[in-house]
Order: sequence, then C-alpha cells, then structure tokens
Amino acid sequence: MNAKTRNPVGWGYLEDGLTADERKAALSAMSLFFDGKLPEPSAAPQADAMTLSPARTDIPPQLRDWLSSDHHERLLHAVGRSYRDLARLREVSPLPAPDVVAYPDSEESLARILAWADRERLAVIPFGGGSSVVGGVTPDDLDDFNGCVSVDLQRLQGITEVDERSRVVAVRGGTLGPDLDAALKPHGLTMRYFPQSYFHSTVGGWIATRGAGHFSTLYAKIEDQVQAMRVMLLDGRMVETRPLPASSVGVDPNRLWCGSEGFLGIITEARLRIQPRPQHRDTRGIIFATFEDALEAAREVLQSGLYPAQLRLLDPAEHFQSRAMSGRSAEGALMILGFESGHLPVEHAMQHALNIVRTHGGKEEPPSSAGDSVSDWRQAFFRQPYVRDLLMDYGMILDTFETAVPWSRLPAFYHEVQQATQTALNRVCGQGAVMCRTTHAYTDGICLYFSFYGRSRPGALGEHWLEIKAAAAEAVMAGGGTISHHHAMGRDHKPWAKEEIPAPFRAAVRAAKTSLDPNGIMNPGLWFDD
Amino acid sequence: MNAKTRNPVGWGYLEDGLTADERKAALSAMSLFFDGKLPEPSAAPQADAMTLSPARTDIPPQLRDWLSSDHHERLLHAVGRSYRDLARLREVSPLPAPDVVAYPDSEESLARILAWADRERLAVIPFGGGSSVVGGVTPDDLDDFNGCVSVDLQRLQGITEVDERSRVVAVRGGTLGPDLDAALKPHGLTMRYFPQSYFHSTVGGWIATRGAGHFSTLYAKIEDQVQAMRVMLLDGRMVETRPLPASSVGVDPNRLWCGSEGFLGIITEARLRIQPRPQHRDTRGIIFATFEDALEAAREVLQSGLYPAQLRLLDPAEHFQSRAMSGRSAEGALMILGFESGHLPVEHAMQHALNIVRTHGGKEEPPSSAGDSVSDWRQAFFRQPYVRDLLMDYGMILDTFETAVPWSRLPAFYHEVQQATQTALNRVCGQGAVMCRTTHAYTDGICLYFSFYGRSRPGALGEHWLEIKAAAAEAVMAGGGTISHHHAMGRDHKPWAKEEIPAPFRAAVRAAKTSLDPNGIMNPGLWFDD
Repeated sequence: MNAKTRNPVGWGYLEDGLTADERKAALSAMSLFFDGKLPEPSAAPQADAMTLSPARTDIPPQLRDWLSSDHHERLLHAVGRSYRDLARLREVSPLPAPDVVAYPDSEESLARILAWADRERLAVIPFGGGSSVVGGVTPDDLDDFNGCVSVDLQRLQGITEVDERSRVVAVRGGTLGPDLDAALKPHGLTMRYFPQSYFHSTVGGWIATRGAGHFSTLYAKIEDQVQAMRVMLLDGRMVETRPLPASSVGVDPNRLWCGSEGFLGIITEARLRIQPRPQHRDTRGIIFATFEDALEAAREVLQSGLYPAQLRLLDPAEHFQSRAMSGRSAEGALMILGFESGHLPVEHAMQHALNIVRTHGGKEEPPSSAGDSVSDWRQAFFRQPYVRDLLMDYGMILDTFETAVPWSRLPAFYHEVQQATQTALNRVCGQGAVMCRTTHAYTDGICLYFSFYGRSRPGALGEHWLEIKAAAAEAVMAGGGTISHHHAMGRDHKPWAKEEIPAPFRAAVRAAKTSLDPNGIMNPGLWFDD
Repeated sequence: MNAKTRNPVGWGYLEDGLTADERKAALSAMSLFFDGKLPEPSAAPQADAMTLSPARTDIPPQLRDWLSSDHHERLLHAVGRSYRDLARLREVSPLPAPDVVAYPDSEESLARILAWADRERLAVIPFGGGSSVVGGVTPDDLDDFNGCVSVDLQRLQGITEVDERSRVVAVRGGTLGPDLDAALKPHGLTMRYFPQSYFHSTVGGWIATRGAGHFSTLYAKIEDQVQAMRVMLLDGRMVETRPLPASSVGVDPNRLWCGSEGFLGIITEARLRIQPRPQHRDTRGIIFATFEDALEAAREVLQSGLYPAQLRLLDPAEHFQSRAMSGRSAEGALMILGFESGHLPVEHAMQHALNIVRTHGGKEEPPSSAGDSVSDWRQAFFRQPYVRDLLMDYGMILDTFETAVPWSRLPAFYHEVQQATQTALNRVCGQGAVMCRTTHAYTDGICLYFSFYGRSRPGALGEHWLEIKAAAAEAVMAGGGTISHHHAMGRDHKPWAKEEIPAPFRAAVRAAKTSLDPNGIMNPGLWFDD
C-alpha cells in the first residue's frame, strides 16, 4: 500500500507533482511548438469545490467497514486518467460519480459487497489503481441501475507465494507495482513490469487491460506472463485456473479474463511468471537519419532472433521533444537499444544488434554523451503525465495513443496516422504537433505510440479532444492497426473497437458474460450488446 | 495435397508402413520388456471386411460434387488415431461412422454443406488430417441428430499470401505440414512445426487442438504463432480477426478458436508467424546419471534466458528403448540440446548451455558417437506410431500421454505418474513398462510425455487401455498437471478435463457456443453442457 496521497483531480500522487524546474522546462519546451507564446493559465480543478452527481444509495450498516460515500472518495473514483476524464473534471458539473466506494479487504468481504450490489441492482465498477487512460472506470449510462459502486481493490493486496523453482509469484489483484517488486527483491526476483502507471496501477488492472511493461520484446504483454488466476464472479463463486506452464485442453480459461476490463468478474489473485533481477545490462542510444531507417533496423534486429529488453524508437519530433525537456537539442531518430540478463553476459547480443543497426546507418552516440538521450528519455517517461496536468491549465490538448501493425504496413501507416492527426490538429487547434515513438516490438510488427499537442481553450477541451481523437482513430483503423496495443478498450475506444472485434465474437463474449453475470451488473456498458 | 494413400485402419500412409527391418527391430526391442516372448499376432483390421453403422442420410443432388457415402470414406472418417480409436476398429462392430463425408473445396461450398447439415439436423464433425489422438473426430452419442457429416477440409488448402516483411504466412485450414513448408521454401522461410503427425495433420487441426511443434522453447505452442484467422460459423458467417502483432482491445478473439476443436466453427484460414530457414545449427547429445539431474539442468538452461530450439530429455527407460530400436544399448538419461538460427551463430548459446549442463553432471557424448543418440531418437520419432499398429496385432497396449507441470512439482510428479501407470499396468497386464521424455519446456515448467506398454489380448484392448489410461490420468490430475499439453481434450480426456477447466468457464464457453451455433450442430459432445 502506498503512503502517498493520490491526486484527486490529476495524475499520480500529490507528493510527486512537478518541481518548479520541471514546470519551467515543460512550459519552455512546449512553447517551442507555439511560437514561444503560451496562453494564460486557468486554475486547476479544485477537489473541494466540485459538484458530484447526488448519491442515490445508502450504505447498509453491516457493510459500513468497507463502504464510503465521502465526497473525496467518490471524486477519486469518478474518472480514470484519460484526457477525456481529466477534461470532464474541468468541464462537466455535476460530475457523474459512483454513489459508493467499496474497499474490500478479503475475498469474503468482496463477496458480501458484490451480493449487496446485485441485490440492490447497483452497477459494479472494479477499480485498481484508477490509472485507466481509456475510460475504463467511469459510471456512464447507468440509468437502468439504482446506483453504482466503485470497488477499489487496493486492500486486496500482497504476495501469497513465491515459487522460486518455477519463477512464479502468486499475488493479489490489488497489489501495486512497487509493492510487488519490493516483495520479490529478497528472492532475487522481479516482475520488471514498468508501465507509465507503475506507481499507481495494480496487478489486476494490468491483466484486465492486457497491459504491457518494461520489456520491449518477448515479455512485453502481461497476458503472456499469466500462469493462472483467481477471479470472483458476481455471485461470489471463484474461478480458479490451474497453475500450468501450458495446456491444450479446450479454450484457455485465462485468456477470457485477460482483457476483460472488469465486466466478467474481479481478478482477486494471479500467478505471474517473473524474472531474475538483471545482473548484466547494456543500453545504447543510436541515432538514425530517419525514422524509416530506425524502423527497418528494428525489424531486422527482431527477425534475427535477438530479444532486446529495450528496443524503443523515437521519431525526430519525439526525440527533439524528449531532449528539450532536459534543455538539450537533437536531430534524427533515436533508438534506445538495451539488453539485460540475470544470468548471461549480454555483450554478444549487443554486438550482433549493433552490427545490424549500423547497416541501416545507425550511429552510436559518442561515449561522452552515450547515456544522455537514453537518460533524458527515461526521466521524461514517468513525468510526462504530470506535464499533461500542468498544460491543461493552459487550455492545451495533449494526449497519446498507441497502436500496433504488421511490419508490412510500415512506414506508410506511420505517415498516414501522423498526417491525419496533424490535419485534425490544424483544423481544430489552428496548429499543433504530432510525434511518435515505438515501445514494444515483435517478429511480425511493432507498437507505435503517438503523442499530440494542440492549443484549445477552457470549456472546449473535451469537445476538441474528441474531434482530434476521432480523426486519429479513424486513420489507425483504416490503416489496419489496433485501436489499442496495451491500454485496453474502455469506453473511449468502443466505437473503433467495434470495427476491430468481429461481430460474432462480440456476441459470443456477451453470451459468456450473461452466463457469468446474469443481471449485467459488472462494469456495464464496457462490452458490446449489439 | 498428398498423393499417398491414407491407411484406413492405422497410422499415416500405406506407402510409409514399416519395412521388414523396422518390424524386426520393433518386435525385438519390445520383446526385451516381455522376457523375449511376444504372443502370436492376430490379423490387422481389414478395411473391406468391416461393418459400419448403417448410413441414415441421403446425399442431396445439388451437393453431390462434395459429398460421399462410400464405405472407405466413411471408415477413414469414423475414428481418429488414438489408441482407443484403433482398438475400436478391432473390437466394435458395427463401427459408428459418419453417414456422409464432405470435401468442400472453397468457403462457398463449405457454407452450402453447413447449411444443409443445419437444415437436416446432421451433426458436423470437422476433420483435418484425422490424426487426433484424443477422440476428437468420433461420431459418438449423436442420437439427437438425424445423422452425421464428417467435413474433411483437405481440399481447402494452399497458401494465399506470404508476407515476407512481417514474417507471416496466410494459409488455408486444410493445408498439410509438408505442403505449407514446400510453399514457404522459395521465400527462405519455414513454419518449423513438426508434430509427430506432420505428414497428415492440417494447419486448422494444429490450431483447433492447440498443438505444439518442432521448437522445444519459445515457439512451442501454435496458439502463440497465430496472428489472425478466418473461421466459418455454422450459418456461413465468417469471423475474420485483424492481422495484428498484439492488441489489448478486450478479450482476444483468436484465443476463443485456439483449442476450439471444431465445436465453435471451422478454421478456414490462418495467418501464422513463420521462421527463417535455419542457417546455423548445433545439436548435442548429453548423458546424465539420472533423469532428475537432467530435469534440473533443463530448468537452469530455461531460466538462464537461453531458448534452445531443441531441449528434450529422455528418462533412462525411454533412452534405452530409443536406442534399442536401432539395435544399440544405453545408460542414463539423455538430453538432446540443439540451437538453431536463421541469422546468428549459435556457438555462444551452446557454450553457455553446456556450461550449465556440466554443473549438473551432464556429459557430452564423445565426438565419434555424438549424433548417435540424437539421430536414433529422430529416426524413432516419426516411426513410433507405425510401430503401435504393428504391436496391436500382438495384442499389446501401447500408448502415450503428455502433460505439463510447474518446475516445483518435479521430480515428485514424474515419479507419482510413472508409478501409478506402472501399478495399473501390472494389475491389468501382469507386467509392462512406463517411460518418459520431455518435449517442450518453459521458464515455469515442462511438458512430460509418457509412453506405456503392456500385454493385453484381442477383444480386451479398449477395456484394458481405459483402465490404465484412467489410472495415469488420475495421477496426472492429482499431481497438478494438465490432462493434455498439446493433444487437446477430445472425447477421451473429457472426464479429467472437467476437473482442469473451472465450472463457470465451462458454462461461459457453452453460452458462447450457443450464440455461434444455436442448434448445437458443430462437433456435438466435445464441450461440456453440465
């Protein structure tokens, strides 16, 4: 459990907010894209002053140890942390909020809370760390219900077993990233799963959203690291899958709950494959003339049978922006190439990879500055969402979206999406910037992660954002990408996800949901009922 | 399409039957386990002389190009190739057989056949290569239907696209292993998926059974190599998933059809991730004093971050048996350790792995005989099922089963299953042998592949087999294994699979099936309806 204070109206923890220097650097970097002039800031949302939708539900006395209808609790659980969510905090009043927040501390209390919700016909929205950037936890369109309870799982936390021989940890669903790693450290093991939300996202949330973590290759997606899980259904029954390295017995049950986003039950525990703590590490920054060259180099590295722990590419705009945050300049595209191992030296793998990238014109940063691009990027990574909060005060739209495509769609897909987003920014904001990095890579394709920035104005943030988001999403879908590589579908992506997910499968999962949750209580509205 | 003739009453192709020398060697090797005395052989089943269940269905004139009710066609599709299936050919008369065999040659003709079956209420049993060893294609318990049509997919074959840049092939579901590789060869690519059924199993069958192939690690299971697929539902609608390296958009649709064993639709095409043809290869045979030592060495290799293409362990009994087939002797356990790459030298990986295995007492076979154990094993691998046919003539029970467990269950699990199977053999057959190899390995566990042999008598093969199979399966389940690592559930494994698959998931998949196949026509009896 984290002792820090969640920011009720922004990213992360209040204690981790931007320093004065970071504020200055962020504003300075951003101003470069806007002729050096940023508009006057408006005030950030004030938690105490916000109006929430009236609570419709009373707390039954026998559950009062676990339930709260406190204003701050309801506000903290009213939205996730997508741009739309944060714009909603500024622009929607009264803000739709769950009527009650539940904090189960055991499977037993969770079962009691779910039974109460089902009896009272209250929508149940499972809530891990609340870092959803896709509208996964918002109480929308719940007129058919008598209320809504946000079930915050962070008290269902901790490690229940470390199987060192099998390199597996059994961990409760509400456990935060740093707590998981702290428990593994004495065993010489680690999850090495560091999403941008690492400090305030949970194991259950990672699985329910099919997230991706530290590793660019091989161990990228969490669903591949799930050995088994325990899931509580609405009626309190447990689904417990068998701990197995692999099986061929019918359809894989684990995969039904990976990506289930809380609409098929609550993941109370999972057995995850874990890693040795790295003993050998080598990371290089490599500059390419163009992003296209960097993509081709990445493809060849992947298809050669090398599995770098880090293989991230920054297009020239992103590279420039990343270094500008540290007050430096940059040209060309950057590849961050890193190998790590708990057991084996990494020199040979690195040499093979460097030989490949050189044939594509990649040039290692000279030793004196070798770490600079990489460390600037690392520094920026966990701070970016805090910058987003700051710049929203200035009426700015800034958001990211990630997708993945087969290699054969590149580089055309990159340009198509970049241009569609830029065109929408120009139309909506007058001007703006689009940049792209890649975060995870496969033998058959890569994950492109776009950022975009544009000037809007207080009161129009949500509306303007949606217009740009829609243009970008349409380009992603038209180009053959996924609407989300590792942030899940959520409510924000549903219109485009509908195109990605075949109709008969939508109906099949709906039927599965009905068999598990006959009254449709679990995170209603998330899955399709067309 | 293969020009060879399928053996209608045994494994594989008639042209590939055992040579006289192979027969002699097999009988000689087997006799070592039975005091040098094998019983008198009885005649193998004769296809022409067999009685099939009376056909109940007429062939409609408009479908006659694709349908057959010929005796030999019906017989060929009456069973798969499990021991129970082959015993049934000898011991059950009349033999339950599909009334009609369909050979669709396009998605269009497939849709017409399915529509006819649905209209006439005929059970549809999809049939790939017919090599199921788990009772996946037998027309059992179909009293609720007006008949049964076996839909043989081998005319729905061929490559539709090779995406060299993405290293993906689009291939129709009925394509046999050798045909897939032949089409990839000019591109310098290969599937490198060599199950024992390689010559007569199909891509669609591999996926529907969640099979495993050539690679012991990393690329072992087919479900991890499926980028996208096309599935035809009973009503002719196509499910077409988007070609993506990864996604996080809700539940993964591909995974619903991986392991679906024909009860959720017919896989007409798949996009599979493929490999470069290996240019660098190194394979060693390593002898360990005990199987336990070999297991520990394998675990350390896997957990060190090495991914050998081949990592197979033979316990002393299997090692002895494997070499006896080639007229040689052996002591101790054997590890077959191989690295291969299409791009990178493999010396360093091999040296690291050898350093590890040496610390566990592994000794490389001397150079003069280095390949011997390995080549003996390779030779035996594809021939073993032919030997099974021969020895059934001698009234012998011989079968295999595979499972997988986390490393922490070893070596105890190995001994438990070995002993339970041996005890059952002793009780049922008076004597017998159990041996074990491992075929696929993971950071968190390994696949154990047991073989057992015992003397029975004509007329009692099926009954005796079931008693031994049940004892082995109970030990597998009690020990925390899966009832099948890569051969699927089928009808043979259902009683134990029920224990492996959580009840709510059984109901959820049943609900999904009902939404896709409302009349329950597709491979009825395969999935649970408890």
